[in-house]
Amino acid sequence: MREVSIVGVGSTPFGKMSDRSIQQLAIEAAVAAIRDAGIDRHEIGALYLGNFVAGPLVNQEILAGLVADELQLPGVPATKVEGACASGGIALRHACLAVATGECDVALAVGVEKMSHASNAQTTSALNCAMDNRSDGATGLTFPGFFGLMWAAHAARYGTGREHVSAVVRKNKANGLRNPLAQQGASLSDDDIAASALIADPLRLHDCCPVSDGAAAVLVTTRDRARTSHPGYVDMLACVQTSGPPRIAGFESPCSFPATVRAATLALQRAGISTRELDFVELHDCFSIAEIIDSEDLGLMPRGQGHRWALEGRTCVGADMPINPSGGLLAKGHPVGATGLGQIYESVLQLRGCHPNQVRDARFGLTHNLGGTGVACTVSILARGDR
Amino acid sequence: MREVSIVGVGSTPFGKMSDRSIQQLAIEAAVAAIRDAGIDRHEIGALYLGNFVAGPLVNQEILAGLVADELQLPGVPATKVEGACASGGIALRHACLAVATGECDVALAVGVEKMSHASNAQTTSALNCAMDNRSDGATGLTFPGFFGLMWAAHAARYGTGREHVSAVVRKNKANGLRNPLAQQGASLSDDDIAASALIADPLRLHDCCPVSDGAAAVLVTTRDRARTSHPGYVDMLACVQTSGPPRIAGFESPCSFPATVRAATLALQRAGISTRELDFVELHDCFSIAEIIDSEDLGLMPRGQGHRWALEGRTCVGADMPINPSGGLLAKGHPVGATGLGQIYESVLQLRGCHPNQVRDARFGLTHNLGGTGVACTVSILARGDR
Repeated sequence: MREVSIVGVGSTPFGKMSDRSIQQLAIEAAVAAIRDAGIDRHEIGALYLGNFVAGPLVNQEILAGLVADELQLPGVPATKVEGACASGGIALRHACLAVATGECDVALAVGVEKMSHASNAQTTSALNCAMDNRSDGATGLTFPGFFGLMWAAHAARYGTGREHVSAVVRKNKANGLRNPLAQQGASLSDDDIAASALIADPLRLHDCCPVSDGAAAVLVTTRDRARTSHPGYVDMLACVQTSGPPRIAGFESPCSFPATVRAATLALQRAGISTRELDFVELHDCFSIAEIIDSEDLGLMPRGQGHRWALEGRTCVGADMPINPSGGLLAKGHPVGATGLGQIYESVLQLRGCHPNQVRDARFGLTHNLGGTGVACTVSILARGDR
Repeated sequence: MREVSIVGVGSTPFGKMSDRSIQQLAIEAAVAAIRDAGIDRHEIGALYLGNFVAGPLVNQEILAGLVADELQLPGVPATKVEGACASGGIALRHACLAVATGECDVALAVGVEKMSHASNAQTTSALNCAMDNRSDGATGLTFPGFFGLMWAAHAARYGTGREHVSAVVRKNKANGLRNPLAQQGASLSDDDIAASALIADPLRLHDCCPVSDGAAAVLVTTRDRARTSHPGYVDMLACVQTSGPPRIAGFESPCSFPATVRAATLALQRAGISTRELDFVELHDCFSIAEIIDSEDLGLMPRGQGHRWALEGRTCVGADMPINPSGGLLAKGHPVGATGLGQIYESVLQLRGCHPNQVRDARFGLTHNLGGTGVACTVSILARGDR
């Protein structure tokens, strides 16, 4: 297997973008990534597109082929991949595999979603395609409900209260204020959060990521080529994809996603580093409580300490373990298929030292993209090329 | 890259299967393939699932993860891939790549679709997600309409009449009669075909494949292992995936799919054989006229001769170039995501010498799976292990 590096990234802003079609969003991000890499687009030998709900919400599949056609990549294998909210991370992994294995020298991963035009009912119904609809989904559970249950379980076990979870929301919304691509950066008080509408007890509106449109794209090539021709390249030390139980009945603990634990363990092992060496983490905070659970699953702190680290400010930029300096899904937004690649975009900016909410001297970063109720997960470990 | 062989295949019947959920269909085929291979399922290191419209028609995504969970493959990367009607072939290609590259030693490809429960309007709307809905789809074109246009173009150029196209229908429906998995085997006269309902001029009901439920699965491993431990193994000499123009405006000729031409050329080159050495072909006859166009695109006969070969019986079992001895999509059925893997199932039976409509001494076979209006294509070349 060859070593792989990122040489180009592109992203649209995340948010409500009624002026652009899903194809236009994808192309905008892809063209930006190609331009960023300074690569002739005809060198691209494989295209992977992460998308989740364009079928039900936009009445359009074959997006991989449509994007390949519009980019004028005639004949190139173009594949849509789906693993619910982890679709973007899965697209990245397959682009990396295509280069690592020598299938091609340059591969493009694009993630895209368009959701904000749909009604709440349509969106909820489409998102619920990520639950097992013969079990959890059949009980009437929705995603806010599912994460509300996880909070209740974490609270029962570790005493996680409103103040801990609000600390996550405050941090990520404040980080989002510094990110020009973010949909909902804000300066919020604990009172603002506690006063926002109750969505699925105990989760309130500010605990939930917004519904978003957007796209992000990443161009990868061999490390050898990156080193010689692409200043600002970022090394992929690991890109691991796992699956996990798709329903609560399959969980060993209601406070942990086995797919995350496994992916993180494998990724750190492959990268040959420990979590202490990570300068920042972009993780899948689709709900505030998810950040606490994900950070424990990733091994960023001891199990059952995630909520304390949040309250003590240890996950802020400048502290022990900066989590979601981009604003995360809570503030930056969550255009489902794009999210995993948006995390890579943010991480590459950090490792190039040009992020609007820069972590000082960042050399190693980790991204974590989680699908459904933990049915799919990707964890990537990135390193500055000239480290 | 390591060489790859097929060691297990499984399939449900294709047809209307209201008694089984989409998950049950997928598991039935997967378990049959695993049993056929005699492999411990825990050896499976990657799962790819081809599916097209479970989002809109079954309200269920994450099918790859659900199947991995039900097969008790904890943690294994499980990915749904989509390329419209070529989703099954794309799943196979990725399973082969996973083994070829050493990512894992055993990989499973599953294809599944459940459609027969939906109304005609729902089905037509869902299938149209495989068109570019900003161009061809926006004109009101449907798939029967699209292939009706292709027939008209082939007729204008080469004189392809009702009698030529009916010869395809007669042959495939008769082949289907011998296939216990087929949905619509039949003994039809030219009059029966010409008297069937007009769907999209000049296509009539018998020119169109039925709406189907079904699943098929294929288990692949290294050739070295197949040789030593799996009698009845079949070698994958090539498995090529391409993309093509997603709308008529992008076609050079209205009688040819560039994605097929490119995939066939590459696949034959990689396999190091010519079409003369092929003992049979399973190709994507979603409509009768498609078989004529596909067979020319694959280079099975000179361009513009496909309709004559059909009329002269040269594509029957026992003749020059047996096409769709299984009955093809026209008779066997077309559960979209399963079709490409169903073709592999049929081909493996041929190469093992145990197909219910056996081609004598079959050593080499080709399968062709086409997505949308030619936006995605896979061509595989298979060979008997002990050839």
